Amino acid sequence: MSGSVFGKCFQVMTWGESHGKGIGVVLDGCPAGLAVDEEDIQCFLNRRKPGQSRFTTQRKEEDRVEILSGVFEGRTTGCPIALEVRNTDQRSKDYGNIKEVYRPGHADYTLDAKYGFRDYRGGGRSSGRETIGRVAAGAIAAKLLQELGIEVRAYTKAIGGISITSENFSWNEMENNRLYMPDAVAAKAAESLLDSMMEETDSLGGVVECVITGLPAGVGEPVFDKLDANLAKAVFSIGAVKGFEIGDGFMAAESRGSLNNDSFCVGEHGEIEKATNHAGGILGGISDGSAVVFRAAFKPTPSIALAQKTVNQKGEETVLEIKGRHDPVIVPRAVVVVEAMAALTVADLVIQGMGSRVDKLKPWMAVKHLGEKI
Amino acid sequence: MSGSVFGKCFQVMTWGESHGKGIGVVLDGCPAGLAVDEEDIQCFLNRRKPGQSRFTTQRKEEDRVEILSGVFEGRTTGCPIALEVRNTDQRSKDYGNIKEVYRPGHADYTLDAKYGFRDYRGGGRSSGRETIGRVAAGAIAAKLLQELGIEVRAYTKAIGGISITSENFSWNEMENNRLYMPDAVAAKAAESLLDSMMEETDSLGGVVECVITGLPAGVGEPVFDKLDANLAKAVFSIGAVKGFEIGDGFMAAESRGSLNNDSFCVGEHGEIEKATNHAGGILGGISDGSAVVFRAAFKPTPSIALAQKTVNQKGEETVLEIKGRHDPVIVPRAVVVVEAMAALTVADLVIQGMGSRVDKLKPWMAVKHLGEKI
Amino acid sequence: MSGSVFGKCFQVMTWGESHGKGIGVVLDGCPAGLAVDEEDIQCFLNRRKPGQSRFTTQRKEEDRVEILSGVFEGRTTGCPIALEVRNTDQRSKDYGNIKEVYRPGHADYTLDAKYGFRDYRGGGRSSGRETIGRVAAGAIAAKLLQELGIEVRAYTKAIGGISITSENFSWNEMENNRLYMPDAVAAKAAESLLDSMMEETDSLGGVVECVITGLPAGVGEPVFDKLDANLAKAVFSIGAVKGFEIGDGFMAAESRGSLNNDSFCVGEHGEIEKATNHAGGILGGISDGSAVVFRAAFKPTPSIALAQKTVNQKGEETVLEIKGRHDPVIVPRAVVVVEAMAALTVADLVIQGMGSRVDKLKPWMAVKHLGEKI
Amino acid sequence: MSGSVFGKCFQVMTWGESHGKGIGVVLDGCPAGLAVDEEDIQCFLNRRKPGQSRFTTQRKEEDRVEILSGVFEGRTTGCPIALEVRNTDQRSKDYGNIKEVYRPGHADYTLDAKYGFRDYRGGGRSSGRETIGRVAAGAIAAKLLQELGIEVRAYTKAIGGISITSENFSWNEMENNRLYMPDAVAAKAAESLLDSMMEETDSLGGVVECVITGLPAGVGEPVFDKLDANLAKAVFSIGAVKGFEIGDGFMAAESRGSLNNDSFCVGEHGEIEKATNHAGGILGGISDGSAVVFRAAFKPTPSIALAQKTVNQKGEETVLEIKGRHDPVIVPRAVVVVEAMAALTVADLVIQGMGSRVDKLKPWMAVKHLGEKI
Repeated sequence: MSGSVFGKCFQVMTWGESHGKGIGVVLDGCPAGLAVDEEDIQCFLNRRKPGQSRFTTQRKEEDRVEILSGVFEGRTTGCPIALEVRNTDQRSKDYGNIKEVYRPGHADYTLDAKYGFRDYRGGGRSSGRETIGRVAAGAIAAKLLQELGIEVRAYTKAIGGISITSENFSWNEMENNRLYMPDAVAAKAAESLLDSMMEETDSLGGVVECVITGLPAGVGEPVFDKLDANLAKAVFSIGAVKGFEIGDGFMAAESRGSLNNDSFCVGEHGEIEKATNHAGGILGGISDGSAVVFRAAFKPTPSIALAQKTVNQKGEETVLEIKGRHDPVIVPRAVVVVEAMAALTVADLVIQGMGSRVDKLKPWMAVKHLGEKI
Repeated sequence: MSGSVFGKCFQVMTWGESHGKGIGVVLDGCPAGLAVDEEDIQCFLNRRKPGQSRFTTQRKEEDRVEILSGVFEGRTTGCPIALEVRNTDQRSKDYGNIKEVYRPGHADYTLDAKYGFRDYRGGGRSSGRETIGRVAAGAIAAKLLQELGIEVRAYTKAIGGISITSENFSWNEMENNRLYMPDAVAAKAAESLLDSMMEETDSLGGVVECVITGLPAGVGEPVFDKLDANLAKAVFSIGAVKGFEIGDGFMAAESRGSLNNDSFCVGEHGEIEKATNHAGGILGGISDGSAVVFRAAFKPTPSIALAQKTVNQKGEETVLEIKGRHDPVIVPRAVVVVEAMAALTVADLVIQGMGSRVDKLKPWMAVKHLGEKI
Repeated sequence: MSGSVFGKCFQVMTWGESHGKGIGVVLDGCPAGLAVDEEDIQCFLNRRKPGQSRFTTQRKEEDRVEILSGVFEGRTTGCPIALEVRNTDQRSKDYGNIKEVYRPGHADYTLDAKYGFRDYRGGGRSSGRETIGRVAAGAIAAKLLQELGIEVRAYTKAIGGISITSENFSWNEMENNRLYMPDAVAAKAAESLLDSMMEETDSLGGVVECVITGLPAGVGEPVFDKLDANLAKAVFSIGAVKGFEIGDGFMAAESRGSLNNDSFCVGEHGEIEKATNHAGGILGGISDGSAVVFRAAFKPTPSIALAQKTVNQKGEETVLEIKGRHDPVIVPRAVVVVEAMAALTVADLVIQGMGSRVDKLKPWMAVKHLGEKI
Repeated sequence: MSGSVFGKCFQVMTWGESHGKGIGVVLDGCPAGLAVDEEDIQCFLNRRKPGQSRFTTQRKEEDRVEILSGVFEGRTTGCPIALEVRNTDQRSKDYGNIKEVYRPGHADYTLDAKYGFRDYRGGGRSSGRETIGRVAAGAIAAKLLQELGIEVRAYTKAIGGISITSENFSWNEMENNRLYMPDAVAAKAAESLLDSMMEETDSLGGVVECVITGLPAGVGEPVFDKLDANLAKAVFSIGAVKGFEIGDGFMAAESRGSLNNDSFCVGEHGEIEKATNHAGGILGGISDGSAVVFRAAFKPTPSIALAQKTVNQKGEETVLEIKGRHDPVIVPRAVVVVEAMAALTVADLVIQGMGSRVDKLKPWMAVKHLGEKI
């Protein structure tokens, strides 16, 4: 029970280490008949690939995905979909003293405490490369949601305290800078802060924001599998996340009921709407039909070149100097990971919810299965 | 799959509505041999009971728990433990127009969207009374953890922006005020803010902080069932929670690697320790042996007496006035709920982790089962 | 993780011991809008109640069920349904030496081996009374399936080697004799064999057969959650079951491919049918539209009045004489338990299957949730 | 939720189709520190490989396994273990009319009914090649159990009604004939029956028996996750299984309590034993310390060369003649699959049981994790 399974109905199991043979994921429970090809997945993976800018590690990896099962004649069959990325850049010389010394801010020590030893090469399973499996499966989840009219979009909201503003917000700008920041002014400021950070061989954290649109009211299971609870877990399971909030989040704790409550009203076409969205699109753990909005706080990259005090496996104090280039910030590459985890969560809850009403089961059951081929 | 199950190995299923016959929980997977009686559970329930102060609803409920199974001669047997609290104060006159009008900030609308109709009496399953099942099971989880030397303690950190300070912090003070605030000065200020809020018939939110001590390094499952991810889900599944953070949380997003990383060092007795605890006791999703510290943001109570714009089930705009007394803040009563959810999460992960190493399985297996009675 | 949970989407957790305060079950995931009342459940429970004939224990139990949650205004709400039967006949004098002596054929020894001690009163959780929870939840599952046009019916096929014949088969007869045997001749023979067994203070086993009709093709999940695999587990989890077979079962192992294969043909109304049903209604783990037929073998009641060699908790050999009246056969009372487990299994797989095709998700998603009240 | 996941704590997800790119499995929850290499797995796979005798299909497949993750320096790390076998013999010409015609006894029709279309190449996911994932993971489970002193061994008990006898039983003989039948006389008779069957282009079924030794008392979870219930599901999930029984199985239904009960007695070294083993090593769903013995009935291979009546996808009646060579019996190749499923089931329940007693948790918790490296 080592925790590499996510989801109940739309369920993934990920595998792989930074410097092992590869990284992958198996997705069970994807509905049959969805058009999927390797390009759909590759374009997601490319967004988290190293080497995109001067702010990301220069590891040379193609990260080329292969679909091994579950897709036939271009469509999902309902059987498990196995996706695999072989590792190609496994420079064994890199490990150095990491083998015996516990890096601050990393899982080296806790993995040893739990398992008695660890795959120390590049962090093993606790490496950021683990997210390849999430992103690959998330691409399929996103494709499924798209079919249903649901869109999940994340972006960098802040880096090292420099935040985008609503005035400057522009989806187009997001593609223009390699920080995935939808605000040209903030992006520029963040880039020069990152440059100075690289000079100081230090690192920064930041905030990713995600917006889900097109989600009808009624998705999310009451009590423990609330939409917000499952999103919180999904996003908090990404390494380096230290905070998560929905809608007004921590600000709501300082508000008043009369200000924080969103009034219901009637829209142009007679549909029920909310006048505001302090709640972030979720009431009682169930989507309310407005946009779901959440944010995740990422800590600064723990791998820095500055000398750090630490201990080794024998329990002796020592000083660690990590060689090599490391990302001064991981937030831009984490954007697509957040998007993937959100898509996996929503796809799972959409399918979980299908059995919620007897009157919805009946037509499903009445179906004459054959003759009505997809 | 309506989401009322929590945990994998130490697993609970809760049930019950605000104005139904009662509220309860069944706990499966509690290890055999734990001393448990109704008083252990009752003292937890008493902390969330209504009517404790002038800031909580005056609903008169004994909330008396009954153990129906799984405990024999004062100890758990390893079989499911059924706990039940019968509802006694079900004033049916209370519902009024809630039956047909969607209360802002509540789940009325989303429940109708999901299920086609709802138990509108007092919010039904989405009522705060649902947490009785969590707290009852959490009391047993806390007892189990205590046996293992692990302690979980939560308190009110802030109400409506008034926060405790580290200088004034006092565990003793927490018992002195009915806000469960471990800071006499802050408690006093919060009380007078609440008094003014009651005059204005408005409400406030706040922040609960929780500290887990005695947890050895090595608890938490990598990737998706990280200790922090499972805590995030557990706490976010409590109604009214809008934010969650571990350690430095959102502040970490504005820090630098060199400041945020916690150095390892060697303690007095030769044990590995951390010089600081920005991480909040978790590295790579696994406990690192230092205190686990997290915070949850609660929104202001949505039930306020002020007139609010909304719509009814027919989709017509209307104005709602909620009659009766409501808590101007739910944070103090939520403290024990947070504690319960944290205890359930940690107990589950402790048991999940028992199979993590072959060398730990061997002695377990070698055991001659009989003759070694508990 | 003590195993009291069954099902994935339509999920039950049962609890309770023979001589504890009661027995019950919580059912999570039942679709909203199903008409259910206590009488629907009671009529199932009455079929397993003791005291129905001279062949069943004379324990006087009303076994009166109470619905505690999840049903509002006569219909399920989608929230957990808690069902409870309080124990009323707990004659503590009954236990005698069972407290210290391991009864052959019972779980006394294995429970001690696993948990270090046990609730010895009437077998505790391993008592046949544990099935009350299964039957209560199964009644709701059966009601749901009925709504969908699916019927599950079980009966006694054989007792102590005396089997019903296809010539004499009559559903009506099943109600006439207390053995639930749909064959008057076989029932009479079985009754006189049971009479002689009671004189000899010995016991018999038998076979229960179950037929599921109205199940459309397409239910069951490939590979591990095959319809037959899940039925096998469901039925084998009933105490005293020692064998399970589907369709021709063990006879198929002695047949030939040319005889055992069921040809497909076209029915009167153009629908695809099978000319025979050696397969018992399942191909590749998925229902094929014909009747699902399975059988379960039950061992003879282990509680017999004859003196038996055994050992006690101290590991000393001794002779056990079990006092009191016991059922000379449990098969007739097990019929409704088999039916309940089959209904739970099918209901769960029907709901699990709802997400199997993208083209089925789309209309579900397109639904404007409000306005279309059940 | 398409059912390709097995196990709760020692959990596998399998993937792959007969004529896709490959077949594989990911195993999550294997304890760290187990010595495993590809040869351990390959020797299991070789036992199910085609082309071993004149009675098995001549498909030329190396079925060479690759370990992609979760093993470092020869030992398991506690992280997911990905195992993969690439398909090499994918003769696309094979499919013929199978694309449009439903083969009797196969899943072609039910897959179409469920998913709307199917990967028809060689049966797709419903092919016997699917079992490669089970066997590969089962090899690791068997290795783990071996470490704990538990051995799982299966063999062919009967083919087409020709059964081994206890007089002739010989484990050595099992290696001498390619039917994996531990009885030279029966094996010879079965071989000549198979020869005649091949002349008639017909096929046979048979029975596999499995014995588990070294399993201490106390493994298995009460009520739904009984050891026998989980074994029943595990084995019934193998394609072609139509019956399953434990100990005396269906014969117990014709026995008497006084004969069927196994007396407890005291062994040479003072340990508690059973004088007989009608129960097949399980009481109340929990292992009792004696050998676990079960049997599975397999139907005759449905792929036969004889002309068969059937229908096509358009719903028209037709006659099918399946070209090419097919196994006249699949039982010998199924032996290792049964062994694998039994090993997976037992390994999972052993780990599930580790949290069953508080007194077992305490020493585990007290452990100073570091310093005591494996």
